[in-house]
Amino acid sequence: MSKNPTILITNDDGITAPGISHLISIAKNIGDVFIVAPDKPQSGMGHAITINSTLRAIPTKYHNVEHEYSCSGTPVDCIKIAINQLMKHKPDIILSGINHGSNLSINVIYSGTMSAAVEGAVEGIPSIGFSLCDYAHEADFTQGTEFIEKIINSVLKNKLPKGVCLNVNIPKLTKDVIKGIKVCRQANALWEESFDERKDPYGRPYYWLTGEFKNLEKNQQILMCGQMKTDL
Amino acid sequence: MSKNPTILITNDDGITAPGISHLISIAKNIGDVFIVAPDKPQSGMGHAITINSTLRAIPTKYHNVEHEYSCSGTPVDCIKIAINQLMKHKPDIILSGINHGSNLSINVIYSGTMSAAVEGAVEGIPSIGFSLCDYAHEADFTQGTEFIEKIINSVLKNKLPKGVCLNVNIPKLTKDVIKGIKVCRQANALWEESFDERKDPYGRPYYWLTGEFKNLEKNQQILMCGQMKTDL
Repeated sequence: MSKNPTILITNDDGITAPGISHLISIAKNIGDVFIVAPDKPQSGMGHAITINSTLRAIPTKYHNVEHEYSCSGTPVDCIKIAINQLMKHKPDIILSGINHGSNLSINVIYSGTMSAAVEGAVEGIPSIGFSLCDYAHEADFTQGTEFIEKIINSVLKNKLPKGVCLNVNIPKLTKDVIKGIKVCRQANALWEESFDERKDPYGRPYYWLTGEFKNLEKNQQILMCGQMKTDL
Repeated sequence: MSKNPTILITNDDGITAPGISHLISIAKNIGDVFIVAPDKPQSGMGHAITINSTLRAIPTKYHNVEHEYSCSGTPVDCIKIAINQLMKHKPDIILSGINHGSNLSINVIYSGTMSAAVEGAVEGIPSIGFSLCDYAHEADFTQGTEFIEKIINSVLKNKLPKGVCLNVNIPKLTKDVIKGIKVCRQANALWEESFDERKDPYGRPYYWLTGEFKNLEKNQQILMCGQMKTDL
């Protein structure tokens, strides 16, 4: 490539989340980074867009990058406003994440991280969502660095087929025991939800969405990277 | 059917919208209606769910139905809380709409109306999203009544294949010139967005998402029901 590739980065955990910081640090070594990320957590926003209210895109310096905006909208809004308003040219690649937690199976439909990547694919731009299969507060986002670099460089070189984006899940394992990259289909799984009903101080009910993720695969190892074995 | 079917109804324009009122009036003649619909407009919410805050589901009497809740969440939240918390048994069918405006092509991914139907399909419940291809304030939601009844009854009788829901778009035409029902694939189309940049009273920029819907089909009649001919 004669010039540096332009790398648009977003996420759904918000512009100050540790996952996007690590992704930016990797991307800075590969090309010119352009950040448009939500100003607050947007997990579970799926493919939502903002059509009944206005959007803000405020220049920031959280990541010490020349082009960096904190956006009041969803991850998909971030992609749309970046491509159609803030950037002079379409990016060479879109990266979303690193999500704090896995994006497996049916979760892709609810995920803001993956919806941003899907929106990139709709726009014909090679797009990758990255997720770390670790929900812990102290999750180590650095363990997948080598693989993330490899995947970004490979997609920049080879592009992706039309309408295809990548959903990369990094197991909760140290680098030395990860054997490599495995291309998988989405697992057949779903959420069995239950709502936690509580009473507010005035006696009125309110609810928290909770649930259990059910793997319906006969081979229970498929895409359950939370419990992923090192040979997967 | 030995007992009345249970019909769960939601929408994305909000529980007081004219489209859901008309859908309820049709469904009341077919089975026992259970309403869980958003307490405010939720257009463009796609498959968003509420995971970082609480949900309310307040019993209401807008539609004079025994089981009727105004929900603070998205259309997909409405389906989840209905099935997993508010209803004693899963419904026989889920209806979403009637949306005020079409749901064609790529719009399905952004649509709260259709995402509610998709969520129903994920849950294994026959689900249909209805949309009227008329954005006018005075849009006449009654013109498709006969077809809506026919489609609901047909789906109740025949069910739908696993993982399939229906996206029904009713053209802006009077009943006497609609020739029948046509099963279509989604068109190849996308939005070419532009953002309308304005200044707030303090001189700071904000944006409205706007755009033009581009039909990329060679046969421009496919699924463009806003300009649909009567022979489609």
